Amino acid sequence: MPHISQRGADMPASPIRKLVPFAEKAKLRGVKIYHLNIGQPDIVTPPQMLDAVKRTDLKVIEYSHSAGFESYRRKLVTYYESRGIHINHHQIMITTGGSEAILFGMMSCLDAGDEVIIPEPLYANYNGFSTAGNIVIKPITSHIENGFALPPIAEFEKLITPKTKAILICNPNNPTGYLYSKEELMQLRDLILKYDLFLFADEVYREFVYDGKEHFSVMNLDGLDEHVVLMDSISKRYSACGARIGALISRNNKVMETAMKFAQARLSPPTLEQILAEAFLDVPETYFQEVGKEYVERRDLCVARLNAMDGVMCPTPGGAFYAIARLPIDDADVFCQWLLESFNHNNETVMLAPATGFYSTPGLGKNEVRIAYVLNKQDINKAMDCLDAALKVYPGRTAIIQNAEVNA
Amino acid sequence: MPHISQRGADMPASPIRKLVPFAEKAKLRGVKIYHLNIGQPDIVTPPQMLDAVKRTDLKVIEYSHSAGFESYRRKLVTYYESRGIHINHHQIMITTGGSEAILFGMMSCLDAGDEVIIPEPLYANYNGFSTAGNIVIKPITSHIENGFALPPIAEFEKLITPKTKAILICNPNNPTGYLYSKEELMQLRDLILKYDLFLFADEVYREFVYDGKEHFSVMNLDGLDEHVVLMDSISKRYSACGARIGALISRNNKVMETAMKFAQARLSPPTLEQILAEAFLDVPETYFQEVGKEYVERRDLCVARLNAMDGVMCPTPGGAFYAIARLPIDDADVFCQWLLESFNHNNETVMLAPATGFYSTPGLGKNEVRIAYVLNKQDINKAMDCLDAALKVYPGRTAIIQNAEVNA
Repeated sequence: MPHISQRGADMPASPIRKLVPFAEKAKLRGVKIYHLNIGQPDIVTPPQMLDAVKRTDLKVIEYSHSAGFESYRRKLVTYYESRGIHINHHQIMITTGGSEAILFGMMSCLDAGDEVIIPEPLYANYNGFSTAGNIVIKPITSHIENGFALPPIAEFEKLITPKTKAILICNPNNPTGYLYSKEELMQLRDLILKYDLFLFADEVYREFVYDGKEHFSVMNLDGLDEHVVLMDSISKRYSACGARIGALISRNNKVMETAMKFAQARLSPPTLEQILAEAFLDVPETYFQEVGKEYVERRDLCVARLNAMDGVMCPTPGGAFYAIARLPIDDADVFCQWLLESFNHNNETVMLAPATGFYSTPGLGKNEVRIAYVLNKQDINKAMDCLDAALKVYPGRTAIIQNAEVNA
Repeated sequence: MPHISQRGADMPASPIRKLVPFAEKAKLRGVKIYHLNIGQPDIVTPPQMLDAVKRTDLKVIEYSHSAGFESYRRKLVTYYESRGIHINHHQIMITTGGSEAILFGMMSCLDAGDEVIIPEPLYANYNGFSTAGNIVIKPITSHIENGFALPPIAEFEKLITPKTKAILICNPNNPTGYLYSKEELMQLRDLILKYDLFLFADEVYREFVYDGKEHFSVMNLDGLDEHVVLMDSISKRYSACGARIGALISRNNKVMETAMKFAQARLSPPTLEQILAEAFLDVPETYFQEVGKEYVERRDLCVARLNAMDGVMCPTPGGAFYAIARLPIDDADVFCQWLLESFNHNNETVMLAPATGFYSTPGLGKNEVRIAYVLNKQDINKAMDCLDAALKVYPGRTAIIQNAEVNA
């Protein structure tokens, strides 16, 4: 029997999805599960976008251009313009989800053995795409105590080697919800120029910024036109995660030409979903205000409920729809599985993502979970009831140690 | 300015798509182009499938399971059953196009530096996915003189090294249209077992088999349950290339588990297109008979027109909708570009794919092109008129040498 590849063996299981089999079994037992484990909002996809697909008179579902519909890319120019980002349609490639934008960006810029520095906790799938391409992630740890702010530049500099090719940030951050400030980004800019690196930026949560703050895009950092590679997606913007429509954006022509060869190998992004995406112009700007208001309320509820639990600590995130909470538990993987396998509260339970999978440094995140506040407030309250009850009876509770830490 | 990766530089441009910019310019000059360069049929996608999307009452376009809708996978079991292939739904993973099935199959089974033997000319994108994963293709040349039959097993054996992990075949073949016989596949089977290799098989043209012949699937080779990895797609089967819905199939659990980790990293295949794909059960089996009849007529017309041209040779393909033709030309890349840039016949021209891009061995295919007979017969006739006229005036014509070869 032939053996699978080492990279296949090394490939991390998704911390967001690896517990799915346990959730499926719990559902079979009749237990209701509140899914706070995955960034799958319950917000409806704008009906204007779905209507565009239903109205199509397409007879043959043909391949599209490998870079996606030109008409859609031209419309996206106006979208980015509205966000203060000035680009032309040649600097945009439509990808199959933000995932593919990450893959193409990494593959176009990094070889096997090359290093990319990423603040951790980090979006777990960066691990996956790096492993696929034999790219090495050098994590730089951010900390719950200051809300997961950007680590000091001196710490980044310590990690730079001749193999370092790029720094990757996600802003607002998944999984921490931290919103990097313009000042933090300006510091990164100087470092990028000093070492002539690529700056990858995942800005898929651009619209989800709260408390009157503004999102500052890396596309507007001076002097980085040849350095910045932006990964984007409509998944969160229009609650259309299943559409798998993203974008890779750069003013570096060589990067775009190279990415185009990867894009041609996979032929094209999905056609029907591009029709859906292109209809974004029919969605009024008030959509974002309404959705933003809803998320702030969910966040506030979620964070308040968490911090009210004995031994739990959760900083208030400035953006996205995630929070990392520190729990009084021995092992987040064991706890999250236990929630599905061995616990219920009035025949309900909650599914969380163990934070371990969001750290690249082994051993970190064992007493943290990522919470996606993507459910309505009533469901969030019920999910928090479950978590509260669970923490009181979980056999691996480490209350005393945890409380000491939280109070420290 | 930071540099792109070596693998990005090594990434081959698609021979099918790299001439697109020249085609775009020709169109701007008002020249009509017959596209025989790409396997994009003009056959309508079954309206039953599009109707399923238009009827959907989905409100939130959510991520699906990373392996695709379970309901769709269960229905696919019945499809494969109807083709004499017995599998269960756990042995099927829905991928974003056949492309992703190739990528996941290769990544799950081969490491950087590992070798896969593939008969050439070969589907160009195998080159692309191999380059992305630093996998080495060892080509084994098949020849136009015997219609691109499977090369002798002894020739395969000469290429096997400790790095050889797999053999990949495409059956019926793209780009040659050759249909491998059960006998040829049985020989491959023995070789696979002898060296304990993976057998990758791309069978996306399964339905396109002509002249009363039958397709024999590698899934039915005895004793290869742990060895066979099947790549499939609805792109050609239902003329839904833009849907990007494929499948990875194997009875090797370890391969499926590993592929699942790659699948989780990219989250899910597109949701709307899975709704489309799942409606395949509404398409009557007569659809394939009608489409098959049409393709046979196109093939016969195309091959007859080609072989009637002075100095041109084209074997009759047994399946798929491609043919490789040998032309009396100096350089297929130059010729195909010249067709778009410098030639027109009554203000029309034809776009072909230079065969060089389908060979992995440098220098081969310089006097060959791949023709996709995906247009209606009237258009094929007009395209052939263009080619006939072009060959008479092409400055790089090598008529005498070619005729000698063809007559040899």
